Amino acid sequence: MIKAGIVGATGYAGCELVRLINSHPEAEVSAISSVSFEGKKISEVYPSYIYLNDMICENADEVVRKSDVVFAALPHGLSQELAAKCKNNGVKFIDLGADFRLDSEDEYKEWYGGEFLDKALHEEAVYGLPEFFREDIKGKSIIANPGCYTTCSPLALAPAVKNGLVELKGIICNCASGVTGAGRKPVQGNHYPELNEGFHAYKVASHRHTPEIEQTLSKLSGEKVTLTFVPHLLPVNRGILATCYADIKEGVSFSDIRKAYEEFYKDEYFVRLLPDGMCADIHNIKYSNFCDISLHHDKRANKLIACSAIDNMVKGAAGQAIQNMNIIFGLDEKTGLDIIPPAF
Amino acid sequence: MIKAGIVGATGYAGCELVRLINSHPEAEVSAISSVSFEGKKISEVYPSYIYLNDMICENADEVVRKSDVVFAALPHGLSQELAAKCKNNGVKFIDLGADFRLDSEDEYKEWYGGEFLDKALHEEAVYGLPEFFREDIKGKSIIANPGCYTTCSPLALAPAVKNGLVELKGIICNCASGVTGAGRKPVQGNHYPELNEGFHAYKVASHRHTPEIEQTLSKLSGEKVTLTFVPHLLPVNRGILATCYADIKEGVSFSDIRKAYEEFYKDEYFVRLLPDGMCADIHNIKYSNFCDISLHHDKRANKLIACSAIDNMVKGAAGQAIQNMNIIFGLDEKTGLDIIPPAF
Amino acid sequence: MIKAGIVGATGYAGCELVRLINSHPEAEVSAISSVSFEGKKISEVYPSYIYLNDMICENADEVVRKSDVVFAALPHGLSQELAAKCKNNGVKFIDLGADFRLDSEDEYKEWYGGEFLDKALHEEAVYGLPEFFREDIKGKSIIANPGCYTTCSPLALAPAVKNGLVELKGIICNCASGVTGAGRKPVQGNHYPELNEGFHAYKVASHRHTPEIEQTLSKLSGEKVTLTFVPHLLPVNRGILATCYADIKEGVSFSDIRKAYEEFYKDEYFVRLLPDGMCADIHNIKYSNFCDISLHHDKRANKLIACSAIDNMVKGAAGQAIQNMNIIFGLDEKTGLDIIPPAF
Amino acid sequence: MIKAGIVGATGYAGCELVRLINSHPEAEVSAISSVSFEGKKISEVYPSYIYLNDMICENADEVVRKSDVVFAALPHGLSQELAAKCKNNGVKFIDLGADFRLDSEDEYKEWYGGEFLDKALHEEAVYGLPEFFREDIKGKSIIANPGCYTTCSPLALAPAVKNGLVELKGIICNCASGVTGAGRKPVQGNHYPELNEGFHAYKVASHRHTPEIEQTLSKLSGEKVTLTFVPHLLPVNRGILATCYADIKEGVSFSDIRKAYEEFYKDEYFVRLLPDGMCADIHNIKYSNFCDISLHHDKRANKLIACSAIDNMVKGAAGQAIQNMNIIFGLDEKTGLDIIPPAF
Repeated sequence: MIKAGIVGATGYAGCELVRLINSHPEAEVSAISSVSFEGKKISEVYPSYIYLNDMICENADEVVRKSDVVFAALPHGLSQELAAKCKNNGVKFIDLGADFRLDSEDEYKEWYGGEFLDKALHEEAVYGLPEFFREDIKGKSIIANPGCYTTCSPLALAPAVKNGLVELKGIICNCASGVTGAGRKPVQGNHYPELNEGFHAYKVASHRHTPEIEQTLSKLSGEKVTLTFVPHLLPVNRGILATCYADIKEGVSFSDIRKAYEEFYKDEYFVRLLPDGMCADIHNIKYSNFCDISLHHDKRANKLIACSAIDNMVKGAAGQAIQNMNIIFGLDEKTGLDIIPPAF
Repeated sequence: MIKAGIVGATGYAGCELVRLINSHPEAEVSAISSVSFEGKKISEVYPSYIYLNDMICENADEVVRKSDVVFAALPHGLSQELAAKCKNNGVKFIDLGADFRLDSEDEYKEWYGGEFLDKALHEEAVYGLPEFFREDIKGKSIIANPGCYTTCSPLALAPAVKNGLVELKGIICNCASGVTGAGRKPVQGNHYPELNEGFHAYKVASHRHTPEIEQTLSKLSGEKVTLTFVPHLLPVNRGILATCYADIKEGVSFSDIRKAYEEFYKDEYFVRLLPDGMCADIHNIKYSNFCDISLHHDKRANKLIACSAIDNMVKGAAGQAIQNMNIIFGLDEKTGLDIIPPAF
Repeated sequence: MIKAGIVGATGYAGCELVRLINSHPEAEVSAISSVSFEGKKISEVYPSYIYLNDMICENADEVVRKSDVVFAALPHGLSQELAAKCKNNGVKFIDLGADFRLDSEDEYKEWYGGEFLDKALHEEAVYGLPEFFREDIKGKSIIANPGCYTTCSPLALAPAVKNGLVELKGIICNCASGVTGAGRKPVQGNHYPELNEGFHAYKVASHRHTPEIEQTLSKLSGEKVTLTFVPHLLPVNRGILATCYADIKEGVSFSDIRKAYEEFYKDEYFVRLLPDGMCADIHNIKYSNFCDISLHHDKRANKLIACSAIDNMVKGAAGQAIQNMNIIFGLDEKTGLDIIPPAF
Repeated sequence: MIKAGIVGATGYAGCELVRLINSHPEAEVSAISSVSFEGKKISEVYPSYIYLNDMICENADEVVRKSDVVFAALPHGLSQELAAKCKNNGVKFIDLGADFRLDSEDEYKEWYGGEFLDKALHEEAVYGLPEFFREDIKGKSIIANPGCYTTCSPLALAPAVKNGLVELKGIICNCASGVTGAGRKPVQGNHYPELNEGFHAYKVASHRHTPEIEQTLSKLSGEKVTLTFVPHLLPVNRGILATCYADIKEGVSFSDIRKAYEEFYKDEYFVRLLPDGMCADIHNIKYSNFCDISLHHDKRANKLIACSAIDNMVKGAAGQAIQNMNIIFGLDEKTGLDIIPPAF
């Protein structure tokens, strides 16, 4: 059994890791930590866990000490030091935060305001979006697990972008996320009566996931991509829908695009390319690691409209982190993640 | 008192008309009709109306006979005959359906599959989006009340389009609507457990509101506009958010755009142009006739992103119909509609 | 126009008062105050009010100075001093808090932990549940506006209790409230993801509204009533449903009970006694001052089951406060409150 | 591997069985049937299953032929014939419908209107609520899987009733269920806009689950129990909360009751007796087979208030059916059901 430790276990991504690893046949939760709840049981924070997982939150050092792999679900800026500790202890490190996601320190500075504390460490880190970078992930010890929007949007666009079927200029990612994406801390805007029955955009064209989406699409296309990303907040618990728009290149037919998607994703268990006529719906992937993709053609404007749906807490966070763990430990990638999403 | 009759009163738009006219100081509901519920009280269909409005559904002819103005909330194809009857009886006619919205019979055929039954009648009809066509509406007898998406999206874009500040090519209207927009009839997709906690696009780039939005923007710009319109279904009762994207023309600054909006809407009571930094939210206009608009600048891609929020049942249907009634009867436009939207 | 001031205007009850008074034909908001937001506009707190009511929060003294009547929506313990100020200035005082609700200082101490600061003031105060105590309210200057559960539950039971048709022992009030009842302050339990899709009881048989419900039923029956009150938290914004159980006395038929309810409420505009076969539903009274009541007979156990539904923010708070204002100012009781509840 | 067939697989309980058996390590779905969707894939009905389970709906006979055990999720009246077929083929039969739940044919006639078609078959059937009747279930071939309310309410009351700690007269089960309990068929009352933001009782003191709850409590107590059962409809997908009231017998302390519950449930994996101070919440058992129970004491009225929460689709239907399958096939009872409920 892989001993999996979780630093920051009482945040939403952390507690989801606990739940998923609990069902994993080859891994077990070895230790958990929380700054806010040190000394408390995780089931005091999340009563749905009572009697099933009553582990006590320790500190991060204990977690490192007891684990073969450490997952970190921390505010940005705090993972780099922890990664170094893990490295020194021969412990694999999977970071659900943003610290290792951007290759460019300049971009990191611009969007997050901090610096790369240990440049060598950043060199070692690999971006853990398995559908695109599986071969790079194998055998690595520091994985930057992608964010939620930054998983969902590139999955919607990758085959078109990689194969040069759409214009790279003018791409729009119009996304909507469930509230868990904003974390556990109660804030006015996510207070039930103020969010319920509402819907609005936020951080319009200024969200930190922008450079990360661009980085992935740039890698796939081989050219620098600049795009427009607008997130919205949905009155649901889980799920992200990305509705992505791109101009189809002259001479490319929609059926060329469909074929490219089929080819690109033909061996990807977690990507479900839906038949024509269906629309990706966050309702259909809840609690699972699947990404549903539907393709649509605006014939009048000759645009590709690609919709993708993921559970922000699973494929957008904890599930993908486990997928990465499976890869680096040589397990079948879907181990512990091969459930059917509930129908309601 | 204006005697206002409602044909199709037991649909969602019809029953909302009953409610709003009930609070109108210068109008009263004179008669209502329903094919499905003829002979029944509207309060048997909508128990929230019990004892307050127990009017019995009659047939459409009775409604015409008893009214100064008839509102019709009917499936498309059925309004033209009714409009003729109203005309022959000297009764004003406000159509909440689609029959009179499109100027071009070809477009009507293409998107709705029918023909203009009486071309002269269509000549007389005017498109009732007061913020743009107020002067045309005054004194008219047949009003084509706009659809919900087709109110929300053009309101978001009009000042930029009319003043030539954005490119007309490549405009995207990414919209999301509450479920009441789909009507009262129970269908599988709107059955509570299958919609709740879900979110998906539908009729992608093929929704019938597309030519209507284009017609409005074409009138405002003086050029034929073709755009991309993608609606989504939100798990809320009411509200539409339009997130609209347009490329800013070279030489135009975002502050030029902001000024154009301020100027365009400065006398429009029902349009609330929000200060910079706020985002339009359907939470804030529920049960009201207001349209909240927020403007955003994607500096990196130099796009205008304009968000607008309306209540699809009020500004997107019944409320705007009453606004039109107020205009054609010479009343202050906000009569009966000047409430503060509830905070929750 | 009655000059109505609101102290504590940025809480949920306070902001609802602003909204409702804004639509009142005989009253206007003269001034508002807020400790947390002094100097800010109420529309900065509640963006749905923007441009329609941008009043600035002052302090409580200013509100008293500018008003004919002051509504107070404050945490308990703070109203007594304010009531004294109002009295000294000849200003009517309607308290939406608990300070003046209980006649017995002992009970107040037991449940709220404080003392009556000015006993004479308490003597003057009257409990403002108009359907029961209308005659006492007329001409009074200090009104204790009932709480939400304490409006809903007694309205369900009053005719049976007052006419001695049910046993006073063993009464159960099983209630469920929307989240606005818990106030504006974000707390973990009302954070969207933790409340959504949940339902639970809270403060079981220990909620402070218990003695208040008992006091009202004791006054109506002439005997001391002790009952069981269990509130639950519903994942909706507004509404309380009380499902009340009482043993029918021997010799009393269910039709006797029905008749007693019909007689008791025959002139009460805001109470809608539903026909047999219907069930009171919070869906049907939202945003209104109505209380819907349905009566049910458990023939096998010979129990009366009475369900009542109110909007906790209207009949359970701000609406009833305005109903009380109407009474003490000699207006028709339904002035400003005679709207049809929306059908959805 | 146990070959498990599902008759009525496209209803909500049926499709939940498919999902859960899919994750069961010792069983596999052998065949499914549906009258409405014969010849179609289940994933055409429930798109969340696409590519993961694309089984085609056959007819019931095929399901019997291919299975070791058949689960039936059918409208009442249809299971008896199927049970006979299973018996004749040596196939175990687990009925999620009501046909075999009531021992008394008179009660079945009174509440369901039909007759026992084959009395011998009814003699063989056993009521499958494992926490109470485990020993009877072992080795049986026809299992009447309890209904949702009829699982939740008795679990809340059993230890008190069985040990004679509360009065059997006057028990009240006030319950609230999520919408999936009403099934897949779209009806007006469960149309999203008419249920959302609503809450109401239904079938007050006349729901068919009443005699079933009474039968279970009568068996446990050894005396005929008649009680009051009032269900309510919650605007959530899943979950039932039962809030049960019973008078504590003289001489019994609340701590006696607590001890009795601890003893009664000490070996029951799926019952989580919560510590004092916590309240059972449907939020905490979603998607799981757990039943959370919290105990409360109304000291003033000396009543026991016991709250229990289950997922109506799991412990209230498909999960409990699998628990029964595990028992009759000699597996560990929690096989395939030992997941941690998600925290949100």
